[in-house]
Amino acid sequence: MKKEDANQFIKRFLSTRRQTIELCKPLAVEDFVAQPVSDVSPPKWHLGHSTWFYEALILGNYDDDYREFDKRYNYLFNSYYESAGERVQRPNRGYMTRPTVEEIIKYREYVEEKLMNFIRKNPDKIDGNLEYILELGIQHEQQHQELLITDFKYILGHNPLFPVYKEYIPEEGEGNNTRENFIEVDEGVYEIGYRGDGFSFDNELCIHKVFLHPFRFQDRLVTNREYMQFMEEGGYRRFNFWLSEGWEWVRTNNIFAPLYWHQIDDSWYVYTLSGLEELNPGDPVTHISYFEADAYARWKGKRLLTEFEWEIAAGKFEPAPGKGSNFVEKENFRVLPPAHGSVQFFGDAWEWTGSAYLPYPGFREAGGAIGEYNGKFMVNQMVLRGGSCATPVKHIRRTYRNFFHPHLRWQYTGIRLAESDK
Amino acid sequence: MKKEDANQFIKRFLSTRRQTIELCKPLAVEDFVAQPVSDVSPPKWHLGHSTWFYEALILGNYDDDYREFDKRYNYLFNSYYESAGERVQRPNRGYMTRPTVEEIIKYREYVEEKLMNFIRKNPDKIDGNLEYILELGIQHEQQHQELLITDFKYILGHNPLFPVYKEYIPEEGEGNNTRENFIEVDEGVYEIGYRGDGFSFDNELCIHKVFLHPFRFQDRLVTNREYMQFMEEGGYRRFNFWLSEGWEWVRTNNIFAPLYWHQIDDSWYVYTLSGLEELNPGDPVTHISYFEADAYARWKGKRLLTEFEWEIAAGKFEPAPGKGSNFVEKENFRVLPPAHGSVQFFGDAWEWTGSAYLPYPGFREAGGAIGEYNGKFMVNQMVLRGGSCATPVKHIRRTYRNFFHPHLRWQYTGIRLAESDK
Amino acid sequence: MKKEDANQFIKRFLSTRRQTIELCKPLAVEDFVAQPVSDVSPPKWHLGHSTWFYEALILGNYDDDYREFDKRYNYLFNSYYESAGERVQRPNRGYMTRPTVEEIIKYREYVEEKLMNFIRKNPDKIDGNLEYILELGIQHEQQHQELLITDFKYILGHNPLFPVYKEYIPEEGEGNNTRENFIEVDEGVYEIGYRGDGFSFDNELCIHKVFLHPFRFQDRLVTNREYMQFMEEGGYRRFNFWLSEGWEWVRTNNIFAPLYWHQIDDSWYVYTLSGLEELNPGDPVTHISYFEADAYARWKGKRLLTEFEWEIAAGKFEPAPGKGSNFVEKENFRVLPPAHGSVQFFGDAWEWTGSAYLPYPGFREAGGAIGEYNGKFMVNQMVLRGGSCATPVKHIRRTYRNFFHPHLRWQYTGIRLAESDK
Amino acid sequence: MKKEDANQFIKRFLSTRRQTIELCKPLAVEDFVAQPVSDVSPPKWHLGHSTWFYEALILGNYDDDYREFDKRYNYLFNSYYESAGERVQRPNRGYMTRPTVEEIIKYREYVEEKLMNFIRKNPDKIDGNLEYILELGIQHEQQHQELLITDFKYILGHNPLFPVYKEYIPEEGEGNNTRENFIEVDEGVYEIGYRGDGFSFDNELCIHKVFLHPFRFQDRLVTNREYMQFMEEGGYRRFNFWLSEGWEWVRTNNIFAPLYWHQIDDSWYVYTLSGLEELNPGDPVTHISYFEADAYARWKGKRLLTEFEWEIAAGKFEPAPGKGSNFVEKENFRVLPPAHGSVQFFGDAWEWTGSAYLPYPGFREAGGAIGEYNGKFMVNQMVLRGGSCATPVKHIRRTYRNFFHPHLRWQYTGIRLAESDK
Repeated sequence: MKKEDANQFIKRFLSTRRQTIELCKPLAVEDFVAQPVSDVSPPKWHLGHSTWFYEALILGNYDDDYREFDKRYNYLFNSYYESAGERVQRPNRGYMTRPTVEEIIKYREYVEEKLMNFIRKNPDKIDGNLEYILELGIQHEQQHQELLITDFKYILGHNPLFPVYKEYIPEEGEGNNTRENFIEVDEGVYEIGYRGDGFSFDNELCIHKVFLHPFRFQDRLVTNREYMQFMEEGGYRRFNFWLSEGWEWVRTNNIFAPLYWHQIDDSWYVYTLSGLEELNPGDPVTHISYFEADAYARWKGKRLLTEFEWEIAAGKFEPAPGKGSNFVEKENFRVLPPAHGSVQFFGDAWEWTGSAYLPYPGFREAGGAIGEYNGKFMVNQMVLRGGSCATPVKHIRRTYRNFFHPHLRWQYTGIRLAESDK
Repeated sequence: MKKEDANQFIKRFLSTRRQTIELCKPLAVEDFVAQPVSDVSPPKWHLGHSTWFYEALILGNYDDDYREFDKRYNYLFNSYYESAGERVQRPNRGYMTRPTVEEIIKYREYVEEKLMNFIRKNPDKIDGNLEYILELGIQHEQQHQELLITDFKYILGHNPLFPVYKEYIPEEGEGNNTRENFIEVDEGVYEIGYRGDGFSFDNELCIHKVFLHPFRFQDRLVTNREYMQFMEEGGYRRFNFWLSEGWEWVRTNNIFAPLYWHQIDDSWYVYTLSGLEELNPGDPVTHISYFEADAYARWKGKRLLTEFEWEIAAGKFEPAPGKGSNFVEKENFRVLPPAHGSVQFFGDAWEWTGSAYLPYPGFREAGGAIGEYNGKFMVNQMVLRGGSCATPVKHIRRTYRNFFHPHLRWQYTGIRLAESDK
Repeated sequence: MKKEDANQFIKRFLSTRRQTIELCKPLAVEDFVAQPVSDVSPPKWHLGHSTWFYEALILGNYDDDYREFDKRYNYLFNSYYESAGERVQRPNRGYMTRPTVEEIIKYREYVEEKLMNFIRKNPDKIDGNLEYILELGIQHEQQHQELLITDFKYILGHNPLFPVYKEYIPEEGEGNNTRENFIEVDEGVYEIGYRGDGFSFDNELCIHKVFLHPFRFQDRLVTNREYMQFMEEGGYRRFNFWLSEGWEWVRTNNIFAPLYWHQIDDSWYVYTLSGLEELNPGDPVTHISYFEADAYARWKGKRLLTEFEWEIAAGKFEPAPGKGSNFVEKENFRVLPPAHGSVQFFGDAWEWTGSAYLPYPGFREAGGAIGEYNGKFMVNQMVLRGGSCATPVKHIRRTYRNFFHPHLRWQYTGIRLAESDK
Repeated sequence: MKKEDANQFIKRFLSTRRQTIELCKPLAVEDFVAQPVSDVSPPKWHLGHSTWFYEALILGNYDDDYREFDKRYNYLFNSYYESAGERVQRPNRGYMTRPTVEEIIKYREYVEEKLMNFIRKNPDKIDGNLEYILELGIQHEQQHQELLITDFKYILGHNPLFPVYKEYIPEEGEGNNTRENFIEVDEGVYEIGYRGDGFSFDNELCIHKVFLHPFRFQDRLVTNREYMQFMEEGGYRRFNFWLSEGWEWVRTNNIFAPLYWHQIDDSWYVYTLSGLEELNPGDPVTHISYFEADAYARWKGKRLLTEFEWEIAAGKFEPAPGKGSNFVEKENFRVLPPAHGSVQFFGDAWEWTGSAYLPYPGFREAGGAIGEYNGKFMVNQMVLRGGSCATPVKHIRRTYRNFFHPHLRWQYTGIRLAESDK
């Protein structure tokens, strides 16, 4: 690594680290501890884990002088890396009241200091592989920034006091989103996957060809207004719109609306990070499961895009986030109607696709802990594309593949419809 | 329907019905009742359900003179058809000791009689749609013939007395299967799906094109000998071969070998429908989950075929079952090495593919109960191809898509490896 | 053992064995297999287990010439005797379709033959201890006769066809039971426990004194009519009548009536072993849990008797079953109003007492498997007294202590009220 | 209430409130949030709930001018009082990060202020019943002081960092406890229950007589040294010492030592509120379940006292806490050998008795929420006597009945042996 690149890296590293802390500012100390469901981690765990990543995968492996801040933290802050040893079982993270937030902040500062020193002193020791892992550290922290937001939304949003994270003042004229437009993409053999010099995950590599039949995609996300129509027509009570597992999920969990929706005296309210507020019908619907996205599309006589259709359509009509794209830097912390001129592929809400999360042809995992990043999750999950209002804009790409189990709703997820002839 | 076709149909119908009863002959009455796990149904339920299908979907809808054998049977023998009303919850089937087997046999005969009369009297009333449903009744019963075998294998195989269903005398020279050969298929745009005049399920229709990169497939199934090597090299103890959910499945269920394997005094035994016997190393490995198939392939540095690769490869090298193909009519009730000259695409064991079970482009469900046959299961399951030693040979096709959840093992399932350059 | 006593014993032994088979006659083979809940065992298991008891605890230990009918049966038919080795886990009994009923009958006959030969040949070898175990074998089988009835009632009563076990013709004038009478017992130091020469269980021994304050007991069981009043006044909807765990049980299991009650078009029906029939308001209420018995008593402003009060009251007013007592030999298989002149302490329904099942002062368990009969269950269960319409009359005593967990309802259980001044 | 008594009450009230806050001082804010198991509540919940009790049961009912601090707190801080309305389900308490600890402290101060004003202004309005409830408020808070200690012991003790709550310096010569002495109590009719002018719970009232046979009680608690001998002789591996449910509990939860014991390199360590330390063999064993207490006693050929024997024995030999009694005011937060001259009935550890928690003869619940305090828990729990090192000394009495489910271990519980001649 050139010294100049090293400096550049440190700058981006520090800016990422600062951003993590910034996002936590509105929280009370108590908010850092809870883990109301297994998928949601305590914010303080995210702070520790995104630090442990640098310690365990970089300093511990490459810096001979490094001494751990506290040996026991490996056990506390390892997430799922089997190769990094035993760890606190995921559902128990919420019981770990120590180290305190203050101690974790010290841990963060310690590791930041050591990492910067290591890079400054040894830029020549940093080969391409290590450079990739360093970059992965930043990307990894960006992912946890998004999780921080969705996780404390879950924690605050399940508290009967409905605390406000940040006030929101809607802009004039917001929320009129009634255009109804489908855009056509021609059939053909297309190229899928990341081709470029920047960072990408292993699951986007392996450029390969796919044949696509002609299709049309809706030029925006489905709105609350539209989704409420689905509900009014018995969406949650009629089995025939649902996948069998989806229907079971609806009945077992007594689901009758998206997550965070509350019906009070015949009106719909929704919890956002600005507190409980009346539902805005023009906003895109969000916090819905794949099952709900799929059921909505069937009810409408349409379907979801495949991840390949999405990637190709974006390539043609909106290959990268635009100025108006609603990412975390906008600090809206909510989904909004598309900016003028945008087809809303990027930001606002992750779009469920009809594609299962599977390896691309030729996919091969990296060795060691890095190899546990993506490949081992390639079963029983569906691909999402495009990023959300909680995603850092620099984290996203047209070829970026996110993935979740089909029943999960605590991420900012949304629906885009597709259709084909025949 | 022409009268001639009606007669033809009745002939095939009766032969299918007889075959069901034939398969049950070696059972004791007691064996018809048990349901040791939710996926396995009591044999007596299969007998009733495959009869109910004709009653509820055909006679009840099309024969105005039809009177139900017993109105309460609809509740007892509906499987999962929401549109056909309430039903005994799946895990409770094993508690329904009545009707007795004898009464169900009477029910079968009653419905057979009524159906034949209806067809004989009204061949002209039978339009294309009804003809399809009639045929579906036979296909449905064939599926339950396969389930009958795997289900009573499960019931008998989990009994400490290891009862024999049918003795088996191995043929001379059986079980030497050491050839190691991969066959190449070229890249190209290929056509997928069923094109023909015969019966097929809705999930095979919607012919469409896929682009395949060049690949090679193993010309036979993986053997017990090979699989034991995987086990000896720590296959079940080393997390890095496994999908994350697979590894959790291994640990939660304490899995250390395929289903029906028993280690007694350092030797491996296996329960087959001929009782507990020493494992034959040359036989293909069977009763393994997708997780195990995938882990084995990773350990070997290979992968599974996609369902598209399988369909195209079969089209080129073995487009249909051959004379030696080991289907249920052979009455082996066990997987065997490939017949001379066969690449074993058909029979023996269903082959797990690396493809998730998803709709083909343009897929649209039928209306009513028929529409609940396939589409609503298109999430969280993996595709299997080729049929097994428990499948009726007439039931299978090159384009036939079977599907199961990745952890299931009670079907005759097997592994075929694939590889590509790069 | 004297030869004469040996002959007497054999006579009683055979009569008990015959009675077991007699009770099973109305069943279909299929009914012998199912285990709808863990507490209910398949009838075929009872047949095997009550035979295994003689084999494992008597023949296996005392008869040197004895050869087991099938060594593997020990694993299949041991219930909970840790000292007798590994066994099929209780909830899995319903999956053991083999041995067949016919084979178990052969097993029964084999063991009967061997046991009789052993006794005939070796009356002198039979000391007091062995005599006790032999008698225990009979008593044990009587207990399983009662369980046979309650278990196939559960199996048939949860079948939507509501099969009839035995028709019942009510006697003239039955079911008018409106007397409302409480009988007083004086305070004093009383003696509790079995004192006599006959058989008794270890849990009744250890005669000891208790001080009883004055109390009054209702001279009959609570009726359906009375219980329906409790229901009509919100019995199952008002928490304040319930123990906390009882209230949780009601809500978790959605309980709103006794077991086997069905509300059809505003009328109450009840499943009895004669099929589904209209509820007779004058019959005693049965198949209720301790939670329900206790809630009913609170609603009424009364309480249940303690087991000591019961034993003393019975001693004074009905020390043993009378002619009209409704035990299994009457073949009613249902609870009935008290016979003329009876205070209904014996037969009809086991009476929940307000006493926890605990050891009497000085209680000491026997050694070996016999020691596992009673003592190890002395926690979290409540005592019941008096026997039911499913109990053999020779099995019961005034000092007999039965015990079940407070939520269980599949036995014939009933309510008798008590009250004290102050 | 006389003005003087009112002033006295306020003094005791404030001192109790202060003590609660005092006990929390060593905690970090984070420690107030977690609920690692359902039985353990977050310390911040205890702070809120013990305040809510005054608000909901006193101010809300009796002070017409009272305005709630926050209406939504009723939902958050009600524990189990059905009559006080809906509430956060117990296992969800740990997810309520708001109100913050600081806000709860304000809530406490608000309610304290209002309660004192109410009492000062209206001493004449306070009748005997309200006086009882006021006193109950203090007693209730004392119970939660004990729970605070055991709950944050659980939270800190399950953290891999083993945080120190308070350092402990052992006194010279501590821990030699080898005396082996049983003291005899004669048979007779004895009086049980609270007779006096002070406060007592409803479950201690209803003085009544019991007959006790002669017995002997051990003059101290069982020590770690003795308990380790039980362990070394296979205590946790041999079923015959255990109640059936106890044995299932041992195997299901893989229990092999008391709670908080850790085996490290062949030595036993124990977590105390002073951190992880080497086990002191002379200290009484604590944090054991009823199952363990009972199993230990059986292994020793002894038994536990009944609650009646305990009460009578204490009446004769140690009717009230002595100077050396180890209660929470000593700030040891650990069990210790008995003080010189004491038979250790009071303090150190709650003693499991062999008595189920049942109503005394004539027991009648109070109306309203107060009535839900004790009676509704009278099933499936065992009685404990004597208080522990976490109990306020003023809270305890000879007649005090504590109760827990037999598997619970997070309280300071211990074992005292008993024996009788048979």
